Amino acid sequence: MEALKEKIIREGQAVGDSVIKVDGFLNHQIDIQFMDRLGQEFRSRFAGVEVDKIFTVEASGIAIACMSAPYFGYPPVVFAKKAAPNTMTEEFYGAEARSFTKGTVSLVRVAKQYLHKGEKILILDDFLAHGEASAAMADIVRQAGAEVAGIGAVIEKAFQGGGKRLTEAGYRLESLAVIEKIQDGTIFFR
Amino acid sequence: MEALKEKIIREGQAVGDSVIKVDGFLNHQIDIQFMDRLGQEFRSRFAGVEVDKIFTVEASGIAIACMSAPYFGYPPVVFAKKAAPNTMTEEFYGAEARSFTKGTVSLVRVAKQYLHKGEKILILDDFLAHGEASAAMADIVRQAGAEVAGIGAVIEKAFQGGGKRLTEAGYRLESLAVIEKIQDGTIFFR
Repeated sequence: MEALKEKIIREGQAVGDSVIKVDGFLNHQIDIQFMDRLGQEFRSRFAGVEVDKIFTVEASGIAIACMSAPYFGYPPVVFAKKAAPNTMTEEFYGAEARSFTKGTVSLVRVAKQYLHKGEKILILDDFLAHGEASAAMADIVRQAGAEVAGIGAVIEKAFQGGGKRLTEAGYRLESLAVIEKIQDGTIFFR
Repeated sequence: MEALKEKIIREGQAVGDSVIKVDGFLNHQIDIQFMDRLGQEFRSRFAGVEVDKIFTVEASGIAIACMSAPYFGYPPVVFAKKAAPNTMTEEFYGAEARSFTKGTVSLVRVAKQYLHKGEKILILDDFLAHGEASAAMADIVRQAGAEVAGIGAVIEKAFQGGGKRLTEAGYRLESLAVIEKIQDGTIFFR
């Protein structure tokens, strides 16, 4: 999506050669009108795909999930919560996700009553890096007996392999901007 | 707001006599169409109020802030992050907020570049209980030299005193549903 690439170049900030900060419109301050355009773009990428629920993970995924929902006919948005790995209870579905940026492992979990057998679930998130969060969400969808309708990421960092891994696992993935590499402060898109 | 009261009665769950769980439409699963109506209601409550930015705190405040923004002319939404109390750096404004429900103190913080002197800031949050989160956000707005245009809460638990405290401090407060007390599993509205 050209407008997104331009915005990343204009407002994003490369930190080292693996992190890109987009706190100005996605992760701390949110450009609502732009999110609305991204939501519309997700709908056109997933045109004709049946979606019963949009599933994301707190906190940064919530904005894009909410702003996309109207374009999918207002399905409920369910956001997974992040907890310490030892706080699983039987009322929750959970899966562990490692954050390579933060060097932590968290338990991504969802109360069982919010995902049901047979539902078609669209997973949306702000970033796709190693794919740990998306894989954890997909695992939770599977535990619930529901079906992953697709996975959408605003920004994919292809060099961290998550996109390849999810695609190879058979998921339909749509990333609105795909970064091939970050080198000397310059962002290279696919 | 009658529709909200009805929804709380229909879908909310009283836990003891001080907690109300609305995970089905606000705090875990989000009813997007209903959030949209709440956003519209906030605009009519704050009719004529100039708003440069909407300010909330992760994670549950993000949805209502995002869904309200279109009705205020698409101002940016800034969400404060919660961190351990010792993670303050000089690039952030921060204020401590106690969670009585969780028994924890967290540092609510915002990168300095996202709040500016003179801006009119509307604080929105899902719940108003003791008012700790709203007071912390108002303090951050003050630190930035900006101005609190108003404080909006989806659900105020009046018996925990936060609303009274904020109003006495001179803030304009609009709560879409005000709970007077919770007794034997029954929710009493003002």
